[in-house]
Amino acid sequence: MAKRVRCIEGGVTAAKGFAAGGISAGIKSGGGSDVGIVFSEKKCVAAGTFTTNKIRASCVEWCSSHLPSAAVRAVVCNSGCANACTGRKGEKDTAELAESVAGELAVDKDGILVASTGVIGAYLPMNKIKAVLPVLRSHLSENGGTAFAEAIMTTDLVKKECAVSVKSGRDSYVVGGSAKGSGMICPNMATMLGFITTDAAISKTKLEPIIKRVVNRTFNNLTVDGDTSTNDMVLVLANGMSGVKVADANASALFEEALYEVCNDLCSRIAADGEGATKRVEITVKGAVTEEDARLAAKAIANSNLTKCALFGNDPNWGRIACAVGYSGARFSDQKMSIKLCGIPVFKNVQPVQFDEKNIHDELKKKVVAIDVNLGLGIASAVAHTCDFSYDYVKINAEYHT
Amino acid sequence: MAKRVRCIEGGVTAAKGFAAGGISAGIKSGGGSDVGIVFSEKKCVAAGTFTTNKIRASCVEWCSSHLPSAAVRAVVCNSGCANACTGRKGEKDTAELAESVAGELAVDKDGILVASTGVIGAYLPMNKIKAVLPVLRSHLSENGGTAFAEAIMTTDLVKKECAVSVKSGRDSYVVGGSAKGSGMICPNMATMLGFITTDAAISKTKLEPIIKRVVNRTFNNLTVDGDTSTNDMVLVLANGMSGVKVADANASALFEEALYEVCNDLCSRIAADGEGATKRVEITVKGAVTEEDARLAAKAIANSNLTKCALFGNDPNWGRIACAVGYSGARFSDQKMSIKLCGIPVFKNVQPVQFDEKNIHDELKKKVVAIDVNLGLGIASAVAHTCDFSYDYVKINAEYHT
Repeated sequence: MAKRVRCIEGGVTAAKGFAAGGISAGIKSGGGSDVGIVFSEKKCVAAGTFTTNKIRASCVEWCSSHLPSAAVRAVVCNSGCANACTGRKGEKDTAELAESVAGELAVDKDGILVASTGVIGAYLPMNKIKAVLPVLRSHLSENGGTAFAEAIMTTDLVKKECAVSVKSGRDSYVVGGSAKGSGMICPNMATMLGFITTDAAISKTKLEPIIKRVVNRTFNNLTVDGDTSTNDMVLVLANGMSGVKVADANASALFEEALYEVCNDLCSRIAADGEGATKRVEITVKGAVTEEDARLAAKAIANSNLTKCALFGNDPNWGRIACAVGYSGARFSDQKMSIKLCGIPVFKNVQPVQFDEKNIHDELKKKVVAIDVNLGLGIASAVAHTCDFSYDYVKINAEYHT
Repeated sequence: MAKRVRCIEGGVTAAKGFAAGGISAGIKSGGGSDVGIVFSEKKCVAAGTFTTNKIRASCVEWCSSHLPSAAVRAVVCNSGCANACTGRKGEKDTAELAESVAGELAVDKDGILVASTGVIGAYLPMNKIKAVLPVLRSHLSENGGTAFAEAIMTTDLVKKECAVSVKSGRDSYVVGGSAKGSGMICPNMATMLGFITTDAAISKTKLEPIIKRVVNRTFNNLTVDGDTSTNDMVLVLANGMSGVKVADANASALFEEALYEVCNDLCSRIAADGEGATKRVEITVKGAVTEEDARLAAKAIANSNLTKCALFGNDPNWGRIACAVGYSGARFSDQKMSIKLCGIPVFKNVQPVQFDEKNIHDELKKKVVAIDVNLGLGIASAVAHTCDFSYDYVKINAEYHT
């Protein structure tokens, strides 16, 4: 990380002028906070990226039809119910939720973005949600980022937030974010919910291509289980209250770097908290002809159930990694492709490399496992994030619904 | 099944003129039979389909460079070692194995096909294998199909074989087969090993397109875990010894139907024996614009870890099925797409359908679960085979290698 971008405490309320909060409306069967709001004092420039699943929840339709925008004031997000596959009634509920929140915050309803996550095929309990909105509004505070991060969790075990301070000349601004995601996570667009706020001032024409590029390098290379959800989105809200304008190319590059740091950090947090995960896995593919080739190979490994079960078993079964590269569609050199596991060479020159079994087994037991593949053809690279595949993934997903 | 194609007992030795056997050469660490041979009295017309993985084991290279052929005499298959990612030495070992078997059987080495399955990145123990070949040859018998089916098993719990008798005018012939496969199984070409024998007489120009079409409708729609292996192949050997010639279009259609029955039956057996499977899942997608669309949707469901975990938990979580259709890439009607689980409607007219929870839960506990999706657009259809996803899949694959 360049010195100009520095990690700080906090999440969606780290930037100036943002308040947030969370509350329990009784949507989740187990109780717990399940409705959150992020509110900006001033109108925000906002952009988003959305799931590529053809079945899109009504909140995804709502947000994508409102963005990019220069007049966003708040995001409301509920967990426990995805409001997906719910037809006309689902659409009506989303619009009504935006309207209710707008009324509560005394802003225009087209300034409200809506996100939902949870069970597919269930209707939002509108009365329960509307009943808690006045209290939730009274709880909104500039220290409420964590309460918001908690309200959006489903099978997540830990809340996920991070922020960076960006030094731009003599001034500075903040980019902070919060995300949820643990299952139904696969590299194909914004595969979870992510909310990023900043007090930098940036136009929507600048913001949109930047968030698309950054999501493509971060959230799109994240997988837990290969299932792309119906509700995924990443939203970025910029309210300009730091007074720093992202005007020229240099400032844009710096802003993109800061956004990358926040998104990449949130990705590694989601991977570490993947359903049933006992360890986080970071896959770096180099030597590719194109970045797309590198991404294909990295994602194929990240999605290989066999590889992820082997990692759970602390088993250096690199053949499964080679196998995944083989079916990924990425171009690679038959002669020069090589693989390292935890930094230890295991495959080189089309042949197995002898390694110390005990040493690699010990390395595999650590909390973060690195897989490095060199495709031996070019100079492009990509990083993918995932986790291992344990009994608990199956347990969580066999018992989730009923 | 038309009356002209009738199930009979047996596998690769059900057809006239084929002998087979299996023996333990000590390749598998746990012991057990691990080398098998299928031998034909007369030269066979043979064709095959091979893995689409770009990393191909040397046995795949050997067979694909020899096929189609009109001079195949035998197939040798070992389990316990895939001989993949083994470079030049691996190629040399495959050729040497073909040569040794040819010597033992007193036939030409180019008449020997070789298949391997097991751990990737290990070399074949050539001395051990060559040492048992004389005994294996002496065991070859026309009742040896089952011994062969056992010798090719890896994590398979049951051997898989089936055969049909085909009535063609006043004559008849037999098509029989045997397959192995339990993990590293994904719909993308011949995703396991399959060996089909027949005493019908058919030219190689007729046989090749037929096996490709049938594999595309059967083995390519089978998945256990989404991992396409480096070693997969389906081989068909036709020795003509029934005296029945597959000559005209009608006879070809009948032969294709028989081959489909055998391959489809082997697929359902592989799905039922998928690693860790507690039940078999048959996914039928109808109402598609093209067969390819139907296949895309069926395979996406079959590959959804979330859906398969839900089925393990006897949970009617149809939202995960809808989600998989959404990201499959298949075209479907927003308004008319519908889903049945165990024959019970669960999603229709873009909305959840109320169902009896207890009833569907009981249905889900059965050994075979049917998922029916109507895409609501056309008349094309496809069937995919898979199994549920249990703790034992993880256990098997976390503990396989070391």
